[in-house]
Amino acid sequence: MLTDRRAILIGEAIEKIMKEVGTGRVEKIPLIKAGGRYLAEDIIANQDVPAFDRSLYDGYAIMAEDTRFATKESPIELEVVGHIGAGSVFLGEIKQYQAIRIMTGAEMPKGCNAMIMLEQVTELEKEDKQFIVIDKQIQINEKVLKKGAEITKGTLLVEKGAQITPGIVGLLATFGYSEVMVGVKPTVGVLATGSELLEIDEPLEPGKIRNSNSYMLMAQIEKVGANALYLGKLEDRLDESYAAMKKALTQVDIVITTGGVSVGDFDFLPDIYERLGAKVLFNKIAMRPGSVTTVAKLGKQFLFGLSGNPSASFIGFELLVRPVLKTILGNEQPYLVFRQAILAEDFIVPNAFTQLIRTKQKVEGTNVYVSSNGLNMSSSITSLVGTDALIVLPPCDDGYKKGSIVDILLLSDEGQKINYFTTCN
Amino acid sequence: MLTDRRAILIGEAIEKIMKEVGTGRVEKIPLIKAGGRYLAEDIIANQDVPAFDRSLYDGYAIMAEDTRFATKESPIELEVVGHIGAGSVFLGEIKQYQAIRIMTGAEMPKGCNAMIMLEQVTELEKEDKQFIVIDKQIQINEKVLKKGAEITKGTLLVEKGAQITPGIVGLLATFGYSEVMVGVKPTVGVLATGSELLEIDEPLEPGKIRNSNSYMLMAQIEKVGANALYLGKLEDRLDESYAAMKKALTQVDIVITTGGVSVGDFDFLPDIYERLGAKVLFNKIAMRPGSVTTVAKLGKQFLFGLSGNPSASFIGFELLVRPVLKTILGNEQPYLVFRQAILAEDFIVPNAFTQLIRTKQKVEGTNVYVSSNGLNMSSSITSLVGTDALIVLPPCDDGYKKGSIVDILLLSDEGQKINYFTTCN
Repeated sequence: MLTDRRAILIGEAIEKIMKEVGTGRVEKIPLIKAGGRYLAEDIIANQDVPAFDRSLYDGYAIMAEDTRFATKESPIELEVVGHIGAGSVFLGEIKQYQAIRIMTGAEMPKGCNAMIMLEQVTELEKEDKQFIVIDKQIQINEKVLKKGAEITKGTLLVEKGAQITPGIVGLLATFGYSEVMVGVKPTVGVLATGSELLEIDEPLEPGKIRNSNSYMLMAQIEKVGANALYLGKLEDRLDESYAAMKKALTQVDIVITTGGVSVGDFDFLPDIYERLGAKVLFNKIAMRPGSVTTVAKLGKQFLFGLSGNPSASFIGFELLVRPVLKTILGNEQPYLVFRQAILAEDFIVPNAFTQLIRTKQKVEGTNVYVSSNGLNMSSSITSLVGTDALIVLPPCDDGYKKGSIVDILLLSDEGQKINYFTTCN
Repeated sequence: MLTDRRAILIGEAIEKIMKEVGTGRVEKIPLIKAGGRYLAEDIIANQDVPAFDRSLYDGYAIMAEDTRFATKESPIELEVVGHIGAGSVFLGEIKQYQAIRIMTGAEMPKGCNAMIMLEQVTELEKEDKQFIVIDKQIQINEKVLKKGAEITKGTLLVEKGAQITPGIVGLLATFGYSEVMVGVKPTVGVLATGSELLEIDEPLEPGKIRNSNSYMLMAQIEKVGANALYLGKLEDRLDESYAAMKKALTQVDIVITTGGVSVGDFDFLPDIYERLGAKVLFNKIAMRPGSVTTVAKLGKQFLFGLSGNPSASFIGFELLVRPVLKTILGNEQPYLVFRQAILAEDFIVPNAFTQLIRTKQKVEGTNVYVSSNGLNMSSSITSLVGTDALIVLPPCDDGYKKGSIVDILLLSDEGQKINYFTTCN
């Protein structure tokens, strides 16, 4: 069962896959559930923001003209003829040398064109009337946010495909979106292959290992925002495995298998793909780890045949499966964040394939340094702990020297200690 | 109701809050649900990994000594006397000049001390017997991963407090953790204050705005990993608001209010804190936006009184509430990721308070540039769209010039386009 395989470049593999991804379905969900999902519609301002001239502070709404000659030496007095809280509206009309008490965010009363902060006036009472004393000139529109100053009606606010961050949730609430259109979450089934696999709650046996890949992949799927379904293990028997795969395809949108794509005698996923009539997009990628990766398509469904090695299956997911899921979810920038960093160790052994090295970034000032995070073997599971990026090392005759600028792909946003400087440095 | 207020430094505010945070409760949950949660126990290796000498590739397990004199000119032949798949164990014993067919990951048979890849041998059949031909010397332990080579039993693998990444899920599965101890998710109630607020599904009215802060905060709470509960709005009436707050404290672990902490006539949260008997930790912070932030504690419960302005409440949450929630969840590094970046515009107006500027990072090579993302006003909601970091500018007599190195706090891990180079550059 040794198949003829031609290794293609990672970029080619991604292109072949992405050409086959259709658009996902969309659904309307309550705003309260929308955080982290992807917008399936452009968001356009259906009103001005603010919707009215609003006071920026607590204080008094006035006519700026009344303060024209106000100075410390000859302050002016304005009579307070009304009082409006936030959300209330003053219905009367202001006359010369009058003022209205106003709250932050309240609508400016008719006739007023500026405001002065509470802290900047002296309040007086004379003959049961309230006055304020102002000792400086106030400009027209001072401390007033004009109608439409932030957003005018009709403005495109957020484009379809954006991830709904808390800021976007706030924006949607401002414009009255109690529900919003988003991409439907695809369901991804995970099937492991290999008679050597035990369930995670089984005791170890000679020659066997626990099925860790499936659980890792399910966590990766959920982290991306899709739904994961554990479909168990395929045994090393072709007919049963074929039947299990057929059934899986009725349950989920996408099937990921781990293992069974190598050149070993019991690696019969290629046969299953053939019997299903699936179109194999490629069966080898010029990358390490994970060169024996097969991706096939049956109708609208993807079949990802990832390597059975933990690091290889982890990386295969991030590079190949993630952009498919993100695209189905509606994200138009579905790839890992791409940065550059400084290599902190030599990788001088040339490699014909692009190497993907698990790393934990070290930050010094504005520089980011990267080196291998532990055992750099595809079978390693500990090297994934603490890994927050992948170093991408394309084939290079001389390898890579310490100090080289290299590409990295970010995986994580884990927190670090922070210093708040009290003065500038 | 103008209270005497002393502005404290952000660092002081965080310290005062963090001193009051107790440890959260813990619970055991299925591994399949554990992604993104925080470990409430150290993870220690309960076995060696691998648990046995394992073959790294598909091929043949051999005795390295048999190949001592093998060369291209005088290759040696080994008889294939067995065949083991992954998960099977060979029970016989190998003799000189014999080999066993073996799969990737399988346990090395007794007597074998090296393996050779399938691609590197020639297979022969003679008189119904199988042979392989080897034309080079194989070293002892070649392509064999020794028992315990990756992890020895008893090793501390992951410390309590780590976020459970997909890699850690894989590790936990490897060691048979079908369940794992994690921090319990706290429930955070969100209460808005202000008669100017409409529900998000209500049509606009003169002088009113929709309650966007509560929805934004709920999205922030959920993003951090806690549970959010919408508790509605407090009206601008003290008795009813007091009763609503009392009730809220029976429903949730932490209450966040927005608005009502300024110096306006209707801002009576200070009175509510007093009637509740809550201890006010501080009521002003030397930061913009969000200086009028009050944090109080009643028994084990925190009361966060954030500013009613969208950007101020957003930032107040990220700086002050987030570390509390993360700590309760069990995270020992609960703060936003801290980096340095290059300022791409002048901020030369001196400010007595630390400014927090919403920004969208621009990456060029290994450099990150930051400048203000849109309208830099506390009332701005659009400036939060696309914001992926906050620039921290402590008070500085000369302000900050373009090109200065400044501190930034990362908010986001949104994806960007990536290039896969096919050769080194």
